[in-house]
Amino acid sequence: MQATAQAHSNIAFIKYWGNADDALRLPANPSISMNLAGVTTTTTVVWDSALQTDSLSINDAPADEKATQRVAQHLEAIRKRLKLDLKAAVTSGNNFPMGAGIASSASSFAALTVAAVAAAGATLTERELSSIARLGSGSASRSIPAGYVEWCTGMSHDESVAYTIAPADHWSLVDVIGVISTGHKEVGSREGHGTAITSDFQAARVASAPARLAQCKEALFGKDFAKFAAVVEHDSNLMHAVMMTSRPPLFYWQPASLLLMEQVRRWRAEGLNVCYTLDAGPNVHCLTTAEHADEIEARVRALEGVQSVIRAAVGGGAAVVG
Amino acid sequence: MQATAQAHSNIAFIKYWGNADDALRLPANPSISMNLAGVTTTTTVVWDSALQTDSLSINDAPADEKATQRVAQHLEAIRKRLKLDLKAAVTSGNNFPMGAGIASSASSFAALTVAAVAAAGATLTERELSSIARLGSGSASRSIPAGYVEWCTGMSHDESVAYTIAPADHWSLVDVIGVISTGHKEVGSREGHGTAITSDFQAARVASAPARLAQCKEALFGKDFAKFAAVVEHDSNLMHAVMMTSRPPLFYWQPASLLLMEQVRRWRAEGLNVCYTLDAGPNVHCLTTAEHADEIEARVRALEGVQSVIRAAVGGGAAVVG
Repeated sequence: MQATAQAHSNIAFIKYWGNADDALRLPANPSISMNLAGVTTTTTVVWDSALQTDSLSINDAPADEKATQRVAQHLEAIRKRLKLDLKAAVTSGNNFPMGAGIASSASSFAALTVAAVAAAGATLTERELSSIARLGSGSASRSIPAGYVEWCTGMSHDESVAYTIAPADHWSLVDVIGVISTGHKEVGSREGHGTAITSDFQAARVASAPARLAQCKEALFGKDFAKFAAVVEHDSNLMHAVMMTSRPPLFYWQPASLLLMEQVRRWRAEGLNVCYTLDAGPNVHCLTTAEHADEIEARVRALEGVQSVIRAAVGGGAAVVG
Repeated sequence: MQATAQAHSNIAFIKYWGNADDALRLPANPSISMNLAGVTTTTTVVWDSALQTDSLSINDAPADEKATQRVAQHLEAIRKRLKLDLKAAVTSGNNFPMGAGIASSASSFAALTVAAVAAAGATLTERELSSIARLGSGSASRSIPAGYVEWCTGMSHDESVAYTIAPADHWSLVDVIGVISTGHKEVGSREGHGTAITSDFQAARVASAPARLAQCKEALFGKDFAKFAAVVEHDSNLMHAVMMTSRPPLFYWQPASLLLMEQVRRWRAEGLNVCYTLDAGPNVHCLTTAEHADEIEARVRALEGVQSVIRAAVGGGAAVVG
């Protein structure tokens, strides 16, 4: 009873921040993302009657208590769904730095979900895999389907799922990630979501999110980069404004993040297809088109404070790979 | 018919951002500030029947068309009030850099108002001087009274005035300004105010401002630095969040601003009395108490990206000096 699955990280164009239901992880607002090709978590799950407890190793080392607990909790939800009474040994590996604003929890819980279900010999719909992945990490629901993905809020566990709105080859966007810091962030996005409601601004951000979702889809379907850039940067600014006005405030931007954001606005004014978005971390995702990706990558690399660059085209969905 | 007046710049603890009435410059929300001792504009006004037009020189050089127009417009309001039919020669000088987040327009229009009225031989109440100064620049209304000052919104020109809520010697706060850039900002605060309503967040900021005003006064009257720091930093974050989410967005923070803000939070966690606030510019005002001012000044000076430091205790009101 063993399977290996691979899932991609994703970057949201319209952000998820704050829950309508914390236990079920129903999001306060719908979101849109693209999967990141080549930015993956690969996870092997072995269900074994000889095991007394669930175990987890990440990148060839035993995981800490907190991470193991979180995975065990997710496995428990899968056991319940599949009526399974076995413990699992989970082995997971990322090919990118964790906890620094590149959504490792998204790819991790997507890969874990797909591997655990396959190892049990079960076959679930993509829709159901997405809703189960969501229980582990909200954004993991978006790493199940391929390409460009929308995650609707939903009013129940079954309804709150992500689905493909355009295939990966619809538009050749590229995410050039300026890695500012690979250190672990002080406040993870999981705890951060809980603070969203303490901002005076969260209600207004949530209320206007459906309008931005519609604008983003319009831009995406019409491949209108100028329209896309305007709504994506605005949405990122809104989320970080909510973070910075929460109690206590969350500041994920670092000095180099601000510098890179400023440069991206300048480069776009020069005529390059590029806009920025930042998750709950300091790294700046510079979204561009394939034709301008080399130029943007070179410019990002040359900036002071940028430690490295990760470049990703639009990726596929989570899949069993062994 | 000549007089010289001096007025201090001020730094707001609870910020003014956006107007309820643009023409009258009635603010969307009330604000609180302290005057900055030693950070002054000195202005001489000469009403002279030989003059064909109003003229303005700033720091010993003829001012540009835009600045001259703005001063002429203000002089026109004063002529109307005093039933005066003369043009004026205005000579003004600042002892601090202009247009970089230190409110030069506040001290400038306060000094201009007091000098112009005195030069005409008129005597107006502080209340009336404050409301006239407000027509030139909203925050100038707060540079008329001495010490710690509140500016109420008011429903009319006469009502929207600033007044002292505590004398300068009530609490020995010190503003240690980390000057990040002395360059002129791309979007001045005057135009910026007009963009406030384009942010989804301005309504919420304005709605919660009276509560913050009350908290700030409580902290100020009780000399409770921890409470003061919490509300002052939060209010600054709220204003910048509105700025960054306006269309188009206004980013006044620079990388070094972010670095300094982060340091200030750390220094406070170490036990130092210090909190930050930023106006419409990159400079970081580090508010501290007299006992910790030397330590804070030394730390701010040592930071990368800080070009210079301006240190100011609580200042007096605008006054005729010659």
